Order: sequence, then C-alpha cells, then structure tokens
Amino acid sequence: MYALALKCRNCGAEYELAPFYVCRKCLGPLEVKYSYEELKLDKKELTNRVKSIWRYRELLPINEPLKFLHMDAGFTPLRRAMRLAEILGLKKLYIKDDTVNPTGSFKDRPASIAVCKSIEFEFKAVGCASTGNLAAATASYAAKAGIPCYVFIPSDLEMGKILQIASYNPVVIAVKDTYDIVNRLATQISELHNIAVVNVNLRPYYVEGSKTPAFEVCEQLEWTTPDYFIIPMGSGALLCAINRGLKEMEVLDLMRNDVKLVGVQPEGCSPIVSAFKKGMDDIVPIEKPNTIVKSLAIGDPADGAYALKALRESGGFAEAVNDEETLDGMRLLAKTEGILTEPAGGVAIASLKKLVEDGSILPSETVVCYITGSGLKTLEVLERGIKPIIVEPDLNSILELLGGGKYGGG
Amino acid sequence: MYALALKCRNCGAEYELAPFYVCRKCLGPLEVKYSYEELKLDKKELTNRVKSIWRYRELLPINEPLKFLHMDAGFTPLRRAMRLAEILGLKKLYIKDDTVNPTGSFKDRPASIAVCKSIEFEFKAVGCASTGNLAAATASYAAKAGIPCYVFIPSDLEMGKILQIASYNPVVIAVKDTYDIVNRLATQISELHNIAVVNVNLRPYYVEGSKTPAFEVCEQLEWTTPDYFIIPMGSGALLCAINRGLKEMEVLDLMRNDVKLVGVQPEGCSPIVSAFKKGMDDIVPIEKPNTIVKSLAIGDPADGAYALKALRESGGFAEAVNDEETLDGMRLLAKTEGILTEPAGGVAIASLKKLVEDGSILPSETVVCYITGSGLKTLEVLERGIKPIIVEPDLNSILELLGGGKYGGG
Repeated sequence: MYALALKCRNCGAEYELAPFYVCRKCLGPLEVKYSYEELKLDKKELTNRVKSIWRYRELLPINEPLKFLHMDAGFTPLRRAMRLAEILGLKKLYIKDDTVNPTGSFKDRPASIAVCKSIEFEFKAVGCASTGNLAAATASYAAKAGIPCYVFIPSDLEMGKILQIASYNPVVIAVKDTYDIVNRLATQISELHNIAVVNVNLRPYYVEGSKTPAFEVCEQLEWTTPDYFIIPMGSGALLCAINRGLKEMEVLDLMRNDVKLVGVQPEGCSPIVSAFKKGMDDIVPIEKPNTIVKSLAIGDPADGAYALKALRESGGFAEAVNDEETLDGMRLLAKTEGILTEPAGGVAIASLKKLVEDGSILPSETVVCYITGSGLKTLEVLERGIKPIIVEPDLNSILELLGGGKYGGG
Repeated sequence: MYALALKCRNCGAEYELAPFYVCRKCLGPLEVKYSYEELKLDKKELTNRVKSIWRYRELLPINEPLKFLHMDAGFTPLRRAMRLAEILGLKKLYIKDDTVNPTGSFKDRPASIAVCKSIEFEFKAVGCASTGNLAAATASYAAKAGIPCYVFIPSDLEMGKILQIASYNPVVIAVKDTYDIVNRLATQISELHNIAVVNVNLRPYYVEGSKTPAFEVCEQLEWTTPDYFIIPMGSGALLCAINRGLKEMEVLDLMRNDVKLVGVQPEGCSPIVSAFKKGMDDIVPIEKPNTIVKSLAIGDPADGAYALKALRESGGFAEAVNDEETLDGMRLLAKTEGILTEPAGGVAIASLKKLVEDGSILPSETVVCYITGSGLKTLEVLERGIKPIIVEPDLNSILELLGGGKYGGG
C-alpha cells in the first residue's frame, strides 16, 4: 500500500492509519498521505485493468484492494454531449455520468471505500449521516458485505430516496431536523458507539473514493484535461477530492493539471458560492436551507473553506441557481442527451448555462460537467411539469391527436 | 455488415433488410439472417473492444455501428452473489445486473439498436408500445439522437415510470386499457403513419439488441456457460433473443451451449408458464393481467410459442410466483447483495428460490439470474413494508434506540 499515514490538513501533524479523523494538536481534519515518489503508474498497463474505482488502487488507502474488486463502483461513462453543447453554444462538452453507478450516485465511490476500510479495521457495524445518496450507497455496500448498518437522515428527504435506502435493510433513523443537526448527532454517536460512521470517523478514507472521477476523466480524455470541471457542492468534500485527484495525476506525471474548477450550489443553500462571490475567506453557515436540491442542502459545509481555496487557486468560478433554473437544467439534459439527473445535476447544467451566457466560459473551451446522481431517485420533483395525454383505446382519436399531418403516411 | 436478409421464422421465406416484420407469404414473424460462415470472432481481440452492446457489433444488424458507439447500453456487470447463494443453498450464483443500464433496464439494448436502425432507414420519428421500460429507453435514445418520439403506454403504469419516460420529452400517449390493446393500437398506427415503432415495424432489428446479454455472460464467465439462465418473460422475446445469442456463440465456436433456460412470470400473468406446466403447445392469453409486476403484464405474448419451444428444447423450466413472493424476492436481493431490482427481478429471485427448494436446480449447478431493471423505477411497490424510525433530534433517545449494548463502546 502506498498510503503512509494520516496527516493534518492544517498543521501537517502525522498519525498512523487508524479510524480517526481529527488532529489531536490543532483539531484540523486529517487526510491520507501517500508515498508518491515510490509510485509509478503506466498508462498502458492501466488500460488493461478493471473498469471501476479499483483501476487506480494504488491511490486508495486499502491494504488489500484485490479482496474488494466486487465492490465495483466507478469508471462511469464520459459522454460527449453534442446536442446540449450546441444549445449552450459550446464546442466540446462532456457529461461525466454517475447516474449509472450501482446505487445511482457518485456516493458509491466513497461509501464502498469506507465499507472496505471498516472491514479492514474490523468494525462490527457501519453507518452514515446523509442527505440520501450516501445512505443508499452505504446501506447497499453494507448489505453486500453482510455488516449491520445504521443510517441517519433528515426526516424530510424525498420519499423515493427513503424507500431506496430502506430496501437494503439498514436501520433507518430519520431525524426531525436539518442535515447539519443529523450530522452532529451521528458524530456524537460515532464517539459513543463502536460504529464506523463512514463520513465521520472514517472520513479521511471515505473522501479518497471521491477523487476517482478525476482519474477517470483524465484517462477518458486520453490523458488531457478539460478547461473546466463543473462540480456540485454540498459539504464541498467532492470538489476538494476531485482537486486532489487532479493534482495526484500531475504529481505522477500522467498529465498537466490546468483545470479550472467550477463549484455550484442551489441558491437556497449556497454558503460557499456566497463567500466566493463576496471575496470572503469565511463561510457564513445557512441555518435553514430552502431548496428542492436536498442532496446539496448542507448549511454548514465541513469542507467549505477548503473548497473555496481550491476554486480560487484553480482560477475557476462559483455559481448558484434557483429551483426553477435547476428544474430547467434537469429537463434540458434529459431532452437533449437522454440523461435523467437528480436535482444536483440540474444545478450543474443550469450553472453552466449561466456561465456561458455571461461570457465566463468561452465557446471554445472544453467543459466536463459532473452529473452526480440519477433522477430516478427524485422523480417527485418532476411531477409538476408532467402531463401524459390520457386517451380512450380508440384508434381514430389517437390518430387525430397525432395530427395526421407531420409524419403521416397512408 | 454480416446481416444478410430478413427471414421468416415459420416458413423460411427471405426478404431484403427493410422496415417490415411480417412474412408476406405466411404472416409469420421475421428475423435477421447473418452470414455466420464468413464471420470469425477472436476472443482476445474482443476483450480490447468497447464495453457495450457494440462489442459484438458483427452480430447486430446495423450498417455503420461505429457511428453509434455513443449509444452505449450493455456490458453490464455479472456479479458473483455470494451471500444470496449461501441463503438459497447454491454454490455458484451470478446476477447479470442490468439495473445499471443508462435508463435503468435491459430495454436500453433493443431500443438503442432500433433507434440506430430507424436513423439508417431515415425515419423522421420513432415510437413504441410499452409497459414502461421500453418507453423510457426509446425516449432517451430518441432524445440523444434528436428525433421526435411517440410512446404508447397503459395509463395505469407506475407513476415513477411515467415520470421517467416524460422527462425525456416524448409525446406520451397513455391509453386507458391493457398493454395488449395498447400494442394493437401502436401496430395500427405504425401502418398508417411513417413512424418507426421500435417493437412493431422495426421488431426484427429491435430484438437483436436483447441477445447481447448472452454474449456478455459467456465472456464474463471466461467463455463457459452457466447450467441455468433465469429470464423473466413478458412477451417472451427476451428469452428467445438470449437463446439465439447463446446459439450464435456456439455456431461461432466461442463456447459450447448447454445452457438450460428458465423462464419466469408472475402468477397474475403467466400464460407461457401455464402452457409449459400443462405440456401444451398453445398459449391461452390472459385477458386481464393482475399483478404488481407491470413490466411483465403482457397477457397475449407475441413470442410465447417460441419461448415455450426454446424452454423445452433447452431442458429447462418455467416457473411462476405470486406478488408476495415477488416482493420477498426483491427484498432478499437488496438485503443480501445490495441490488435494488424492479419487480421482474423479484420474480426471477423468488422463482429461483422455489426451484432450488423443490430440487429442480441442484446446489452444485451454476446459475445466472438476469435482473432486468432497476427498482428505482418502481419504488412505490416497496412502500408497504417500509417504516423508518422517526425521532426528535435528541442524542439520548437515539442512543436508547440503538440499544447501547450490541455495538456499544464508551
């Protein structure tokens, strides 16, 4: 394994690779440190490997990755979006399509890493605090591993997400409060109970799964990078992880990293975007997020400050859109590319549209837009705009409906 | 292209490759005829190809397959199901997991082939008659191709499926009657309008997409075959297509085909299973299917007689289960393997359970169970059994809930 230690992101203090997440000296968050110098990845050899997160196993903090090949999230398609690009006025637009991950979202990546690590650490149960996607992913991988699972969610989640989560048979604890409170409770419980709460006490390992889309996109673009990488932000952890993945690719001499990161949030919960736009370093938490984009309704983003720094360093942007624009973004992606996204993807598409329209992103620039989850999980948000034509089983009335003209034959 | 002609499945009459589907001589159904003698597939070369239906492009009736590589359904995972196998009492069980296809079902395979073919035939619009999955797939690929799409569905479909279909922006015509009537209306409309109705006038091309799981499973099992291949049956077309794919693999000398096919249906609509069990050659249509498994609620199965013949020739079985068993099958798969299936997959798992319990399938035999679609499309059927624990945001009451004991630490 090339993972060497846990290292504090603030003061640099180092610790052994154990199930903890806070620096004992400065209370900063910990991350995994690797021995990049000893690591050499060969592009040609890589292309013969499994098409999953385990393709880049040396950059994941698991002792025996080959034991876990069946936990196979990742290596999702990078789809060239010709029709959407044309409508937006871009030459080269790609959709990194995580709707087809096993439980339908990018969270399969970090959740599977964390469940694997919980097995290596010999935990007897796993859990998570979640706005929905992570709970489904954690419960699914726990089911596959045969480990008890406890998920903590806000009780106002979309019913579709709750049903999906529950299907994998975890203990579902729905708390009548915001995600931020749910997360705080799960943190306290992780300290009192011997549970691997994947995004709390296994967080340094967990987030490593979220950097894998960066590796895949670079490889899928034949070891080049896009000009822009558009990433939805909840806690900000995903953006930080992708940033880390891009930097690792460069350190390992696989490509040159000049990607500009674009972090997007819904207007009803956009603390990171607000700080970016105001040029502030501190993020003002939102107490009561108000948006249909529940997967991004994190008012007090744990990695917000790091995300803000990454956005600025990369020379990118931050953008927010309202719920109506989000729904339009979802519909636009579905009707031009046949991809049904959850609202977070609608935020990404709508933000991209805005940034092209206002000239921030130029028509000649290459864009990768990360669609993080499937719209099958959140169908209820579409209900408003949908009206099938209901007819009696009568040929003539249907023919009349079809207009007889446009595609008429006989 | 290795596709030579359309050939009548009954009388053998041959026709040019055009958009029609019924033999002018005997009214039998047509299928695509290939020049297998001229075709040589190299196993090693195959493994370097794209991981989609286009991997086996020589066995698909498309003139320019390379033009359509972006229509990339298929090559879904074959997952070893260790925990489920143990519970069922089997040594080797695999799940062919089509829940991760782009629109969440196996119908992405035939729909994408048919949409490609409609482009080659220069149709100006596509459509389909569907119990849900096909409509979503057709609408999605039509959106991607930028072609108008008309879908005909029974108006009592699951709301989730209707919302998914509508998101891709086709004209949705919901008919107040059974699938069989919807299908008849779509057939009449295909004759009057210049629309490529994918499962009607393009049916011979369309069904070719459904044989691709056979190719993939053989390759994924390192060019061996399972003892049993469990396949849900609606119209019976999927089972016939997989049978055809297995035979083609043998003709091309890629493996020996001794697979026993198992066709499964819900009790509330099991005309093929009934005929099989009674030893009859004729299938008695069901006028009013009554089952939660709407994707299989086809009372008058177009390919029923052919499916029956294939089942018998292979030495396999046919089995039916009731709605309660179906739900149990869905829950069992989710909680042991972390895979959420639509009800059709629940029928497959529950039928497998029955066949192992009654000794039809032996513990030592290798089984592949085809999970044809994602449970995210039909979450409402799960609603009954699901009850999250709703709690106030209070640490002590949650700790009490967790029992403090089992995984208790501090």
